[in-house]
Amino acid sequence: VVFPSGVPLPRLPSPALQAESAAPSDRSGFLWLERLKVRIGGGEPFAYDVVSRKAVDAVVIAPHFERDGKRHVMLVSAIRVPLFTRGEAEPTLWELPAGLVEPGEAYASAAARELFEEVGAKLPESAMLQLGPNMYPVPAMIAEIHSFFHVEIDPDALVAPPGDASALEREQRRFPIALDEALALCASGDIRDSKTELALRRLKDIFP
Amino acid sequence: VVFPSGVPLPRLPSPALQAESAAPSDRSGFLWLERLKVRIGGGEPFAYDVVSRKAVDAVVIAPHFERDGKRHVMLVSAIRVPLFTRGEAEPTLWELPAGLVEPGEAYASAAARELFEEVGAKLPESAMLQLGPNMYPVPAMIAEIHSFFHVEIDPDALVAPPGDASALEREQRRFPIALDEALALCASGDIRDSKTELALRRLKDIFP
Repeated sequence: VVFPSGVPLPRLPSPALQAESAAPSDRSGFLWLERLKVRIGGGEPFAYDVVSRKAVDAVVIAPHFERDGKRHVMLVSAIRVPLFTRGEAEPTLWELPAGLVEPGEAYASAAARELFEEVGAKLPESAMLQLGPNMYPVPAMIAEIHSFFHVEIDPDALVAPPGDASALEREQRRFPIALDEALALCASGDIRDSKTELALRRLKDIFP
Repeated sequence: VVFPSGVPLPRLPSPALQAESAAPSDRSGFLWLERLKVRIGGGEPFAYDVVSRKAVDAVVIAPHFERDGKRHVMLVSAIRVPLFTRGEAEPTLWELPAGLVEPGEAYASAAARELFEEVGAKLPESAMLQLGPNMYPVPAMIAEIHSFFHVEIDPDALVAPPGDASALEREQRRFPIALDEALALCASGDIRDSKTELALRRLKDIFP
């Protein structure tokens, strides 16, 4: 591991982890739980639940363009069923386009596919540029990686987004907005999705 | 809803969501799955899985202090079992302290408790300052909210962190680092936890 900044994080000894399945997992649904029995070194075993699914990783895409001398981004709306279950009055969030990476699919390829499905911009995989390192959004719960991309789009050459044939994506809407305005809406709490704020902040580093 | 920036996000009509349980959920473990049958308006019902647990929300704390004229933060190490299950060679991440909010517990109170457990800094709830709006880290999967705090600590007045009595926290280590160095380690991919990068970037807005 190289630390370009010159300050190394301490290398911790790799923990002597042992994990075995404590119960068979029912993989018939979209999500499933791995019920594990974990031991560290010679310690007492403890129970640990991990969420999993067929497609574990996801891409987050910041589609952007210049208009009136200002960098803009394209947001999309997303109905989030878990918010509905906690009684949120407004279970629709404004987010950057994102989606799951199918098993065997390259991250950049998933980004190009999701960009077309959700935004209606048909661009090759080679147009997808990495937007900073991959991150773990909730590493205590699922092994999911978020891979971030940015891509210049032509807002006058978009087609109607075909979606992914799901009922949720049929309801999806697009909204173009100046990058600085989108960041202000993160600061005011109107944009409430973590990956969206993180990607917008990384994009701002590129387009100050 | 007020939009201080002057640019309103479109108000989407609240989706006519109906959700009912498609199967009883086994709540005997730490995590459980709600298997839902969801309908939007008069559309066809579709299956949707939501992860839940007793303590849904979490706090993220940025403990900071000045040393040699530079703002520093205290990171902690965290063994992340899900990373181990995907075969990650290094399943230990460097993160800001964080933890679940117990049912009925105030966010600021959870932040003060977690700060003591993980960092060994005993500070009152009133010292916990909000670090930007609450966010949804993975709103397609769980209703979890992340609530962000920052707090000035005295690095010379820390006690040994008592942890939460779990085997995982017994392995936890602290590491003080300049804020700018921590941000450089996010950019280089050495810090790989989304909430940590987001909180460090928000803290940098306060301490430029």
